[in-house]
Amino acid sequence: MYKTIIEPRVSETDGVGHINNTVVPVWLEAGRNPLFKLFTPDDNFNDWKMIILNMNIDFKSQIYFGTNVEIRTWVKKIGNTSLTLYEEVWQSDTLCAAGDTIYVNFNVEKQVSERIPDDIRRALANHMHEAH
Amino acid sequence: MYKTIIEPRVSETDGVGHINNTVVPVWLEAGRNPLFKLFTPDDNFNDWKMIILNMNIDFKSQIYFGTNVEIRTWVKKIGNTSLTLYEEVWQSDTLCAAGDTIYVNFNVEKQVSERIPDDIRRALANHMHEAH
Amino acid sequence: MYKTIIEPRVSETDGVGHINNTVVPVWLEAGRNPLFKLFTPDDNFNDWKMIILNMNIDFKSQIYFGTNVEIRTWVKKIGNTSLTLYEEVWQSDTLCAAGDTIYVNFNVEKQVSERIPDDIRRALANHMHEAH
Amino acid sequence: MYKTIIEPRVSETDGVGHINNTVVPVWLEAGRNPLFKLFTPDDNFNDWKMIILNMNIDFKSQIYFGTNVEIRTWVKKIGNTSLTLYEEVWQSDTLCAAGDTIYVNFNVEKQVSERIPDDIRRALANHMHEAH
Repeated sequence: MYKTIIEPRVSETDGVGHINNTVVPVWLEAGRNPLFKLFTPDDNFNDWKMIILNMNIDFKSQIYFGTNVEIRTWVKKIGNTSLTLYEEVWQSDTLCAAGDTIYVNFNVEKQVSERIPDDIRRALANHMHEAH
Repeated sequence: MYKTIIEPRVSETDGVGHINNTVVPVWLEAGRNPLFKLFTPDDNFNDWKMIILNMNIDFKSQIYFGTNVEIRTWVKKIGNTSLTLYEEVWQSDTLCAAGDTIYVNFNVEKQVSERIPDDIRRALANHMHEAH
Repeated sequence: MYKTIIEPRVSETDGVGHINNTVVPVWLEAGRNPLFKLFTPDDNFNDWKMIILNMNIDFKSQIYFGTNVEIRTWVKKIGNTSLTLYEEVWQSDTLCAAGDTIYVNFNVEKQVSERIPDDIRRALANHMHEAH
Repeated sequence: MYKTIIEPRVSETDGVGHINNTVVPVWLEAGRNPLFKLFTPDDNFNDWKMIILNMNIDFKSQIYFGTNVEIRTWVKKIGNTSLTLYEEVWQSDTLCAAGDTIYVNFNVEKQVSERIPDDIRRALANHMHEAH
């Protein structure tokens, strides 16, 4: 599991008084930084590999300004060219949001999907989500 | 169908060179302004009703800076207290993203879900998505 | 003067109930799209020219969700390599924010500032701000 | 001085390949969380006090994805009802942005500016910026 601590920002709240729902995908993406680094170790956007195919998020509880949030990121499934993540957003022992995100390992220059390399598969395998 | 034209912003692109995936939920929410107005006609956040339960977005094609985007918003299902939307993001005759979003009609003060009122049901019925 | 209409988004409000102050720079940048197009006609980020040097914004009145906003963009001063803009944010006959932004015409590849070309100067001259 | 560490997000970059300029105000606001807490200890937006009057930011160097950023926040001047901050954005020993932000201590309910209370003045005095 990858773990990322997020400190909510005033600009991430909305008029209803909580964190706006569109911020959750932003935080989940922030939690994937170590994964992006696996696929593109030098952070060079010209060699970017992970292109998103689907996000599916359940919103379970309001998220408040003033208390840190923890993003937990697991690998759910490693396909040939695709990668499915399972992610959770926690605040003060409350599971506030959870969902799956599917990426494809894409060669932007050649415009083709590519098999996820074996060394990355091995690294990802350390973060598999076991059904609870 | 509700239709909203969006002009992409430089700040909405990312290093890979296209619109960042986290912007799509922002644009989809922007496309729901007429729906929010149905539930909260005076735009008063103290009387806000629509609380999101789930978003599920398929990313089908890159979205580029420099060309306007059209958000198309349909009502897919009107439940007792819940509302399912089906939404599409189009750019230059390309369907770039599509997905479902589920809301609940929530009374924030009483902290309970409430039946969607009949007058709102009638207005929503004009925007039903017919299976193609 | 360049004029851009913006429809405020729920995600752009904050817990205090109005548009968050950090959204104003986003809207002002959105209002500069026709200027970016002058400097980079094909919208290719590899040939991007306008790099920001300074933003200075006065916040004069709260901006509300539910009513469109108009961004007005003038050219204040055309230097050798630099460009100063004067910009205003209006909502319902209220001047809500105003300020100056300074850009430099920068060649990213060579990493040097370059004189603003004459054809662009002529186009910019049509949008000069006259002191009121 | 208040110090806040920020991990840049992919969604905060833009097509030119660096952190977009509109993200700097977002990070600077994030760095003010301890100040907001001084004025509104319970994080209740109904009792929010700090309303922004002006932001003035110099952009000195590009900010890159992949390396943490440090926000440094000083108190520059404590007026009767107003507060001027001086803030810097650092990445890897490079000063990337710096600027002043002016707030007013505003009673939203009564719609009047109020003198900054003595206990807050004393707390702020510990974070004064001395001219270097």
